[in-house]
This record gives sequence, C-alpha cells and structure tokens, in this order.
Amino acid sequence: MSQDIDKTTAGAANPSRRRFLNTTALMGLGGAGLAAGITALPGGTRDAVAAPATNGGLNPHVNPGELDEYYGLWSGGHTGDFRVLGIPSGRELHRVPCFTPDALVGWGITNESKAIMGTKPDGSLQFTVGDTHHTHASYKDGNYDGRYAWINDKINSRIARIRLDYFVCDKITKLPNVMGFHGIFPDKRDPVDPAINYTTRVFCGGEFHIPTPNDGRDLDDPTKWQALFSCVDAETMEVRWQAKIDGNCDLVATSFDGKLAAANQYNTENGITFQDMMAAERDACVFFNVARIEQAVKDGKFTTIGDSKVPVVDCTRAANTDPKTALSAYVSVPKNPHGVNASPDGKYFICSGKLSPTATVIELEKVLQYFEGNVADIDDTIVAEVEIGLGPLHTAFDGRGNAYTTLFLDSQIVKWNVDAAIRFTAGDTSAQYVVDRLDVHYQPGHINASQSETMFADGKWLCVGCKFSKDRFLPVGPLHAENEQLIDISGEKMVLAHEAPVRPEPHDFIIFRRELLMPKQIYQHEDFPNAITDIANAGVTRDGNKVTVKMVTYAPTYDPLEFKVKVGDEVTLILTNLDRIEDLTHGLAIPDYNINFIVNPQETKSVTFKVEKPGVYWYYCTHFCHALHLEMRGRMLVEA
Amino acid sequence: MSQDIDKTTAGAANPSRRRFLNTTALMGLGGAGLAAGITALPGGTRDAVAAPATNGGLNPHVNPGELDEYYGLWSGGHTGDFRVLGIPSGRELHRVPCFTPDALVGWGITNESKAIMGTKPDGSLQFTVGDTHHTHASYKDGNYDGRYAWINDKINSRIARIRLDYFVCDKITKLPNVMGFHGIFPDKRDPVDPAINYTTRVFCGGEFHIPTPNDGRDLDDPTKWQALFSCVDAETMEVRWQAKIDGNCDLVATSFDGKLAAANQYNTENGITFQDMMAAERDACVFFNVARIEQAVKDGKFTTIGDSKVPVVDCTRAANTDPKTALSAYVSVPKNPHGVNASPDGKYFICSGKLSPTATVIELEKVLQYFEGNVADIDDTIVAEVEIGLGPLHTAFDGRGNAYTTLFLDSQIVKWNVDAAIRFTAGDTSAQYVVDRLDVHYQPGHINASQSETMFADGKWLCVGCKFSKDRFLPVGPLHAENEQLIDISGEKMVLAHEAPVRPEPHDFIIFRRELLMPKQIYQHEDFPNAITDIANAGVTRDGNKVTVKMVTYAPTYDPLEFKVKVGDEVTLILTNLDRIEDLTHGLAIPDYNINFIVNPQETKSVTFKVEKPGVYWYYCTHFCHALHLEMRGRMLVEA
Repeated sequence: MSQDIDKTTAGAANPSRRRFLNTTALMGLGGAGLAAGITALPGGTRDAVAAPATNGGLNPHVNPGELDEYYGLWSGGHTGDFRVLGIPSGRELHRVPCFTPDALVGWGITNESKAIMGTKPDGSLQFTVGDTHHTHASYKDGNYDGRYAWINDKINSRIARIRLDYFVCDKITKLPNVMGFHGIFPDKRDPVDPAINYTTRVFCGGEFHIPTPNDGRDLDDPTKWQALFSCVDAETMEVRWQAKIDGNCDLVATSFDGKLAAANQYNTENGITFQDMMAAERDACVFFNVARIEQAVKDGKFTTIGDSKVPVVDCTRAANTDPKTALSAYVSVPKNPHGVNASPDGKYFICSGKLSPTATVIELEKVLQYFEGNVADIDDTIVAEVEIGLGPLHTAFDGRGNAYTTLFLDSQIVKWNVDAAIRFTAGDTSAQYVVDRLDVHYQPGHINASQSETMFADGKWLCVGCKFSKDRFLPVGPLHAENEQLIDISGEKMVLAHEAPVRPEPHDFIIFRRELLMPKQIYQHEDFPNAITDIANAGVTRDGNKVTVKMVTYAPTYDPLEFKVKVGDEVTLILTNLDRIEDLTHGLAIPDYNINFIVNPQETKSVTFKVEKPGVYWYYCTHFCHALHLEMRGRMLVEA
Repeated sequence: MSQDIDKTTAGAANPSRRRFLNTTALMGLGGAGLAAGITALPGGTRDAVAAPATNGGLNPHVNPGELDEYYGLWSGGHTGDFRVLGIPSGRELHRVPCFTPDALVGWGITNESKAIMGTKPDGSLQFTVGDTHHTHASYKDGNYDGRYAWINDKINSRIARIRLDYFVCDKITKLPNVMGFHGIFPDKRDPVDPAINYTTRVFCGGEFHIPTPNDGRDLDDPTKWQALFSCVDAETMEVRWQAKIDGNCDLVATSFDGKLAAANQYNTENGITFQDMMAAERDACVFFNVARIEQAVKDGKFTTIGDSKVPVVDCTRAANTDPKTALSAYVSVPKNPHGVNASPDGKYFICSGKLSPTATVIELEKVLQYFEGNVADIDDTIVAEVEIGLGPLHTAFDGRGNAYTTLFLDSQIVKWNVDAAIRFTAGDTSAQYVVDRLDVHYQPGHINASQSETMFADGKWLCVGCKFSKDRFLPVGPLHAENEQLIDISGEKMVLAHEAPVRPEPHDFIIFRRELLMPKQIYQHEDFPNAITDIANAGVTRDGNKVTVKMVTYAPTYDPLEFKVKVGDEVTLILTNLDRIEDLTHGLAIPDYNINFIVNPQETKSVTFKVEKPGVYWYYCTHFCHALHLEMRGRMLVEA
C-alpha cells in the first residue's frame, strides 16, 4: 500500500535529491567504491552551506544562566560510555563511565570501579572496550521514576545499570551464552501483580548466532547456532531467564501493561551470509508472553547451557505453535526490519521495514487475544502496514496521535498519523496519513521525542541521531562527529532548530522533563564502609610488605602530606574527600604509577598498587579546587 | 598601586558578592570544611537562575547548516585528551586521543597507537593516565600555520604532538628528569636566523622539585632537589636541551622575535610546604636567552643527568649574575604568580599575581637590553604593576591595546588598558586603566580570545574556562561539568553570550580563524606501508603459530568474511578501509578479545593478539556505515 507524499515539503519538493539518495541505496555489496550512496551530497565547502530557518514555535537557544528543560540520556556507542545531554541546547552535561576505563574519574583504576567492571586473575581489567547502543530508564505508572537507567554493551554482551541519583554505574552483568547483545528495554509494570506498578525486569535481545555453549563445538555447523533473549532482574541484576529464539534480535519494546515484551528480528532465515540474511520477504517481530514464560520456569520447564545456571526456555517458532500455551508469537514484518517502538497510548508496537519502505502497526490487545486463542492468524494483529519512505528505522511519538520515523536512505523524518494509517490500510484510500517530511543531515538512525516512550509524550522536541555529519561542522580530519539534530514538533510542520555534534557514536537516547530527576550533589560518608571521616584517623600502617595509607583531602591540602614506602611493598591508598561543598571535587595523581582518580564531596575511593620504582613521587591534585590548587601536593618517598 | 574599580559594572555594583568571595579566599589551610569560599553563592534551585542579556554586537548562535567561524583547540585535563571546539557555538567537534587510551578510535589497542604511546616489555601500555593542561600551535610570521599543536601531560611529564592536517597524535616524548611538566609554548621564529620565520622549538616548564636522577637518592634532603626547563625540537620531538632553574615553573611564554622564552615561577623559595612556598613576597618570571643557551650547548658548557644524554645548562640565579653572559634573568613578580602571556604587539609579557591583586607588565626590549648590560636592575624591565582584582591568573588580548585578566577569587574578568596601566605606574594617577569588569560563573582559570596569542588578535570573542559550574547546568550528580563561558568583546563593554559545559578539565585553549586550517578528509594508502590496496591481496597466511590476516573493508562488508585459527596462535590482523568517501569510517570489534578500533577512509591499522578462547567470534562493524551496517560481520572460528 502506498500514498503520494506531501508535495509541499522540502524532501518531496526536491525529487532529484530523493532519487539520488535512492539509486545507490542498496549498492555496495558487489565491490569497493560503489558503496553507501553518499558520495556526492550537495554542500562541502564550508561557507557555501545555506542556513535553514530556525524559529518554530519553540526557542532552542538556552541563554546563559538558564537551564535546559529536558534531560537526555544518550548511549555513547563504541566510546563505551553513557552520556547526559541537556535539551534543547544539545549540550553534553556529563559522561558516566561504565564499560570502558575513564582516566578522569579513575574508572578502571580504583578498587571500587574494578570490582564493578570485573578483573582477570592478575587483577587487570577483564574488558577494556565496549559498544553501547541503547539506554532506557526505569518506569513507574507509565513515566520515568528517576531510579535507574540501563545500557547495553554489544561487544562483550554486558548490561550496566546507572544510578540516576548519583549518575554512576553500580552494577555490570555479562549475559551468558550471548554474543551481540543489542536491544534493551525495561518492563513498565508486572504482568501479573497490579501492585507492582514499576520496573522489575530488563529485557535484552541477543543478535549473533553462536554455538551453545561457545567452547569450540559446532564451528562448522551454523545450523546448530543459537541466539537468546534474556530477562535481567532490575534490582539484583542477575539473569532471571533466557529464551531460545529464531532470528537475530534487533530492538526490544515492552507494553505499558507489563504483559508483553517484543523484539523485532531480521535474519529469521538464520543465515550467516548477506544473501541468506536477506532471502525472506518478511522477517518478524517476536512477542514474549512474560507471565507464561515465568510460570514455565517455575514449573521447571527449562534447560540450561554449559556452566550457566540460568533457566532457558524454548521460544522458537517450532516449539510454540499452539497459541493457548505458546510462550512466544512471531508477527511477520517486511524484510530485515529495524526498530520496534511502543506508542504512548499503550495500544501499538510499530516496526519499520528497513529494506521495505513500510511501517507496520501491531495492535497489542489483539496479540493478547491471540495468546487466548481468539485470533486465528498472528498476522491478523497487524492493523496497518503503509509506505512511508525509504529505509525506515525508528519511530517516536508526540502524544497527539502522530508518529515520526527516520528514513535512513531518504535522509528524512516522516511525520505520519497512526489512526489515518490504520484507516488507510482498512481501505479508506482518502486517509492522508503522511503529514510532513523534513530533510535531516544525514542518514538518520535513532529518533526520539520529549517523553515519547512514556504515557506522557508532550510533543515538543524531537531529536534525531544522524550517522553522518559530512559538511555540517568545521572539518577536523577524517573522523567526523555525528550530528544530533533538534526539531521543533510543537506545530503541524517540523522545524529544524539546532544541531549538536557528538563523538561517535550515540545510537539511542531518551528525553524527559527535568522534574523527574533529583540527583544528589554530594555523597554521604555512610555510603562508603572504608571512609576516613576524621582527620585524626588519617595515617600510614604497615603489615609486612602491605602498607595502608589512609588519606583525607580538604581544599587545598592532603593529610598526610608525605609517606615513605619501599620497593616491593603493596600499597593500598584510601582517600576520603572531607569537603562538603557542592562541586568541590579533588583528584589524586601519582606520577609514573598510572594512578589518577577523583573524589567528589564526601566520597571515598581506594587504589592498590605495587611499589616498583624508587625515588620521590609528588602526588598532586588534578581537579581544580582552590586558589592554592597548584600548590596542593604531597610526597611518596620510595626507598630502593 | 591601586585604582578604584568602575562602579558601573556588575561585580563592583554588588560589593557584598565581592566581599563574600574574598573573605574566604585564602582559607582552607587550617582545617576541613572551611575551604574554597564558594559555599553559599547565590542561585542553586534550577528555576531561580536569572537570565543575563545575551545580545552584544555579535551573535553567538550558530544556525543549522552554518559553520563556526573559529577553531578552538582545548586541553582535556585529566581526561588526558586534546579537544577541538567550534567557536562561537562552544560545540565539541572532536577529541584527539594522545596520552590515554580511547576505546572508540582503538588508541592503545592498535599496534600503530601503541608504538606512539609506548609499551612495557610485556606489550601492555606504559601509561594509561594523563593530565593535559596547555595546548599551543605552531607559528609562522606571527600567526598559526596549521602544521602542529602540542600538549603536555603533567602526570607523566610527556609532550604530545598533534598533526593538524589529520587531527591525530603522531609523537609523544617523555622529558627526562622532570616531574610535573606544566607550561608549554612553541617559539615563534628563530632567535638567530631570520630566514627561519616559523616554529622549530617547544619550551616546557618543569614544576616539581625532585632528586636528579630520581633513583632513590636524596629522599630526605629536598635542598638537593631540582626542577628543569626543557627545549624540545618541533620536528624530531627530541629534547634539545634542559636548564636547571630556581623555583617551580608555572606557565611559559615566547617572544615574537624568537629571542626570549620565559616561565613565571612560584616557590622561588624552593620550599616543600605551603608555608615555605608562600614565604617570599615576590617570586619571579625567569627569562631564557635562547641563543646564548644554544651557544653554550654548542660550546660543550653543559652536564648530563643519570642515563639521560640531554645537555643540561645551568640557569639558576646564582650561576647567572653577569647580565652580559647570563643565560637567564629573573624578573621579580609578586607572590606565587600564575600565568604569563605575550601581548600581540610583541612588546610585553604580562604576569599575574595570584596571591597579589596585581598584574605586572614586563617590556621585552628592556629585557634584551638587560642581557646587553644596558639595564642596571632586571626589575627595571617592569613598566607597570597595577592592582586589577583578587586572584589574577591569566590574560588575553583584543589587539586594540586591552588586556583581559581572569580574577579567580573575584570570579570576574577585568578588562584593562595596558598603555594606561603603564602611564599610571609612571605616575599619571589620572590614567584610568580599568575599562570594564564582568562576573563569570564561577572561579575562572584560563582565558583566551580569538587570535589573542598571535600578531592578529581580532578582539571578537573571549572564552573563559570556569573551574566551577555549580548551578549553571541541570544537576547530574556530584561531578560537575566545567563551564566555558563565551564573551563578546567587540564593544567597549563585555557581554556574556553563551556557556558550554565541558568534561573536566580543560585548562588552556587557543582560538583562531577557520581559514588557517585545511584538514584532510581522507587518508592516502601511501601513508601506510602495510596497506592492503587490492581486495585480491586480502587473505590469511600462517607461519608456525603466527597468523597474519590481511583484511579489507568496503561498505557494507569485510573481506575475508571468515577465518580459522587455533588456541595458542598469535594473530596479526591488518585492516584497510578501501572506501574513499568522506565520513565513511568502519569499525572492527572482536567480542571477548578486547579489540575494537576504527579505520577512516583509506586508513590502515593493525592489531596483534594471542588466541586464548575457542569458539565462534563474530567480528562486526561498530561504526555506522550503510543501510546494511547491522548485517556487516564475519566470523573468527577458533579451534580448541
């Protein structure tokens, strides 16, 4: 089903641009140099770029002294971090290290962070790279409750939890027998107990097929390889259960009633080559009946894999043919779909076609009816499937019935009305579902709007993560920033308002009102069992070659200001920041010993290191704290 | 000498603010909880912050599709990196990893980056932390020439060079017998040969006193400890010479004629406690006669320290009492000065008092005359010393005769006229040298203006690095962003235009017009001796247990898409990106093997790793490249 696009919008008004982008859309499989279809986009010289209009109904400019209205939680891609942006300014306010070391914070250096990250038997970090894609936050009654966010690491199949009171990572779990952990979404309430009106589970989609366990068996027999869908406990961060599935999980979505989780899936062919992965005309969005799966686990209807104790249920197509007992159901979606998003009215999941120019709208009440045996064909849950443009990926919502979908190949956002699309699909060809189109720069991936993934979508700001920035910023060499474009969606027409360069590569993000968070500004000594709360307890003790240095800091000095050790000692240095003033952070660096970390107000951290080099080592404060910050230093004297 | 401040400006109009900030200015030496003097600044609740006026003569808002007019090169503090900002937008366009690993780029993972960073005998990185403070760029004829920038690492006394064509670090040098390498500045032309009208040396100030060599000797005898001033060759990055000095070097400046380098110095007392460091009423700005030092080295008048082959000359006060042969000269500057900056007219160096409310103006022609024996007292080179406010640190210039100095304790910028200050010092008490004051938020450190450190200062934009942001951005937990405030200085009055949060902790930065740089967008295969320029040469070869995988990538695939190795093999994987399209970067991650790196268009990189775990490992593209990016992956099959 198709519909003429609105000829009055920019993308449509410039058909040659659209045709150009499309012609090479799927090229690049055959050889080098033909790829990507973005060879000759207009622009390029730095002064020749035209300035679009900026003033819609909303003002994107945040004046000095004003605060952003929205928090944005952003993934950091293969930088491996979690980021906090202010919206509408697009300014990066914070980075939270989780999967990869951070030399500023001392993440991966302090004993406390190493315990969270995980170490090898020799004490070095188990993992030093990460690839974060999606971040989502905990819910209560259909809105964010400000407790936690979670973020995935695709490289090493880890999930990290971020505490939103202190904006720190406090737990990391590695999913067993999963490679290519991609989509992630918390549930929004319990599927059975209505009193549990908040997040208690996080669902994790596994992407790559691997032997189970992956110990060298079945190397040459991909038909025996498997991908798993995992459920992690939101509090303990332990894996509750896993499910064997067909296909590769892309994104994950959950229903507002807590009953359904879903993953859209490409490669339901279970192929390992491009050709195999793209063979089928339709792939799937697989729905999980959470209550049934957990009952099955309770009933002992599970297996385990290798050394893992995690119960594994069978959610493959073949094992779930009877809707009334099925743990899962596969709704068909056109070719290699990308993105599944829950509409804020709680009614629909929307999947994009990626290799099909369509969006598919699945009605959740009908999916529940399917599991009751009241819907004959699972594909009868599809209430709309309409053409929206080339390379559709992800969808956001404005709370006024409109969806906004990124079109990767068209380099556009399309605004379309969900009810009109349903009417159009039902046969009302007069239903104009495409409302507006807007060019973006360039090749957009994820998209999200203010409060979009809650029941309180407010339809003000839309952000779109453009994968290529090309000529939009001053050139800085071959590695380009990505371009997070901000769009005013408060009116009928979308208005491009601002663009923020970001270090590659944010994928997904959420945007919510600032009132939903009340972060703390200083720590409490009680949070740290090893805190040195009194200067009188600072000092050095020795037990054989093990030396403990209890140190405190208060601007602009350390106590003690000097300690003496010997080559061969193992030193544990515990540092408490006694300052109680907001923003008064201290650092401690020891030259040539690979030690630097910060202690925020009232925080305690520790490091343990072997003393290997004799000499005088001035430890000093790396985090500006006081007029005499430069003079703030002490001496580690190392005897040969 | 003092002068009433302009009562019409904000800071002066609010005397209670100034008094409040001042009362606790130097407290904090005595005990915890009294420190820093910023306990109760106004503001705090997020909605209560007043919005200052934003519109001066210049517009800070860069609309979508427009480019910033200026590049800003920024240090990254104990994040250990080098950053590129666009000005006036304040947007971070790029980060260049140098001293610390970077999981995105694969810096510290690839063989090429490890060779630059330096490794231990076991192949692991020698250093994983860094603390960058100052960055400056190469000059030609008094302006930036776009070749190089340099940046210091204070923790491990390293200097890195950044190529400004590709925005990558290509060399790192560790200074011998230096701890706490702080200030850095390139020369601007040769002191002897007028044909060399560009940078050939970089001067590096050493801060901490240590035994020489620092091998465990003299641990308890600080009187034998020493700090060194170093000269690094701009091209070879080898240390040309070092100089023994009195005091701790803070910042470094160089004259436009190439003849003089200088470091301002605190702790000329050579003390090791706060009390000792602050004992003297005046410290110094030490000038180096570059031509004489290099002649002394030629003449063999040097020593060496420990294993180091670097010639060391004696620039201490005691060894340089005769001006006509002196290698150095110590101009006195009030108490613990901070910052030394060269005025764009080439005439003056300006030092700030930090613990004295004064700026000191030193006339360079008189310093040259001193070295000729034509000035009786070195302090006769001081042509002005005026009160400007509390806690003066660093100075920028507008090219119209005005200086802009940060006042850390007053949390202000003071704009003052250099000629008027000279007249005032000479006795003309009617000379109004203070032109304007502006509150900043809060506690400013470094400051710089567009083109300020060149002969082409244009007086448009001023940036100030505020060490504390406190209530200026949405709260994100205890660790606060720093606040880079942008000020319009095109008119008589300064106007606060914009604020940009930055991850701690930028110290210093330079700002210059975009025309001065022409970065390259793609690499050339010729730059990489191991490039695989033809798909036909991709493949796997084995020599015993050493396996070489030659791989290419072109969107959206790798070649080969599969290779097989055995546990115990040592694999070297060489990856060339064959794509020639700007911004088309690919990544390669290998799960569980701590490998991720990117290859920009036409770039080649390699990694070497031991094969330790059997199984199927899907390598995949981490850097979005194509509509089928998600499907872009291959398999490393590892036999047990």
